[in-house]
Amino acid sequence: MSRWEPNARGRLEQAALALYGERGYERVTVAEIAARAGLTERTFFRHYADKREVLFDGTNRLQQTLTGAVADAPADQTPIELVRTALTAVGELFEAGERREPARQRQAVIDKNPELQERELVKLARLGTALTDALHGHGVPAPAASLAAQVGIAVFRVTFPRWLDDPHRRPFPDLIRAGFDELRAMTC
Amino acid sequence: MSRWEPNARGRLEQAALALYGERGYERVTVAEIAARAGLTERTFFRHYADKREVLFDGTNRLQQTLTGAVADAPADQTPIELVRTALTAVGELFEAGERREPARQRQAVIDKNPELQERELVKLARLGTALTDALHGHGVPAPAASLAAQVGIAVFRVTFPRWLDDPHRRPFPDLIRAGFDELRAMTC
Repeated sequence: MSRWEPNARGRLEQAALALYGERGYERVTVAEIAARAGLTERTFFRHYADKREVLFDGTNRLQQTLTGAVADAPADQTPIELVRTALTAVGELFEAGERREPARQRQAVIDKNPELQERELVKLARLGTALTDALHGHGVPAPAASLAAQVGIAVFRVTFPRWLDDPHRRPFPDLIRAGFDELRAMTC
Repeated sequence: MSRWEPNARGRLEQAALALYGERGYERVTVAEIAARAGLTERTFFRHYADKREVLFDGTNRLQQTLTGAVADAPADQTPIELVRTALTAVGELFEAGERREPARQRQAVIDKNPELQERELVKLARLGTALTDALHGHGVPAPAASLAAQVGIAVFRVTFPRWLDDPHRRPFPDLIRAGFDELRAMTC
């Protein structure tokens, strides 16, 4: 099998999300995903370690975006501004990749499977730790870094489902800004 | 075996935490915990379903305390005040039960075991959902309830390790108050 496979990765993700939604994550095999995508199992395994990884392979890029945005931020930003900058960068990544629809399909799969929900919690906890470390590396003292990062994760957790279901289809960065505005109105 | 067993539950917890710390959670058996406590395995299973439950049986009480405090709070409290009231009530529970030392031992066990860490994340996520529901039940609109609850969980996550390691042994409610003061200073 040596023919060129344009956008194999994207086609595999699309096929997997469709099948998970139709038949339930547990019941779908890698062979079926590959067949739906018009590709071989071997091609699948060149892109993903297993069928779960299709749902979680974006985590590293998400983490790099978060921490990279903090590292590149102006030195005079406050801890909460740094967190907002980082989450806005993630939002721009989502929008640039047109991730709303696949993210919605993915969330519906995760909502039906407790093991995937645990995996998602672990992912969020890791992002929180990475964000704390990035803030600390940018000169924020440890206690403030930890609180700002956890508050950022809180805003992210609230914003994400709003983005998925927003009837006005507002971009993620706009909803992040609205979330921080609400936070300020709530605490001040 | 019909003799009276004073404070069997507390003795079992103490024995379990000591053994988990000395030998590693994975390597300790229920028989060993019971023997260390001077009790039978049968008594162990009257109190705990398994050795993991010794570490997580406080979750229900924690949740009841959180949600009960919200339900009983004055109607004029803002969402963030309600969350602070709820976390203060949890702090008072910890102090009344003299939980700092067992909580520190428990945390050391959890920090060494990824499966227990996942369990802890699931626990925190459930507390967040319960807090959201309690706020909503107290009249807070859904979007604000969700954000306030997640921010409360963020403050709790930051405060908990501070309480465990506080050199001045300040009470949990004082550290919660300090956490909300930091949050305000950070966001306003």
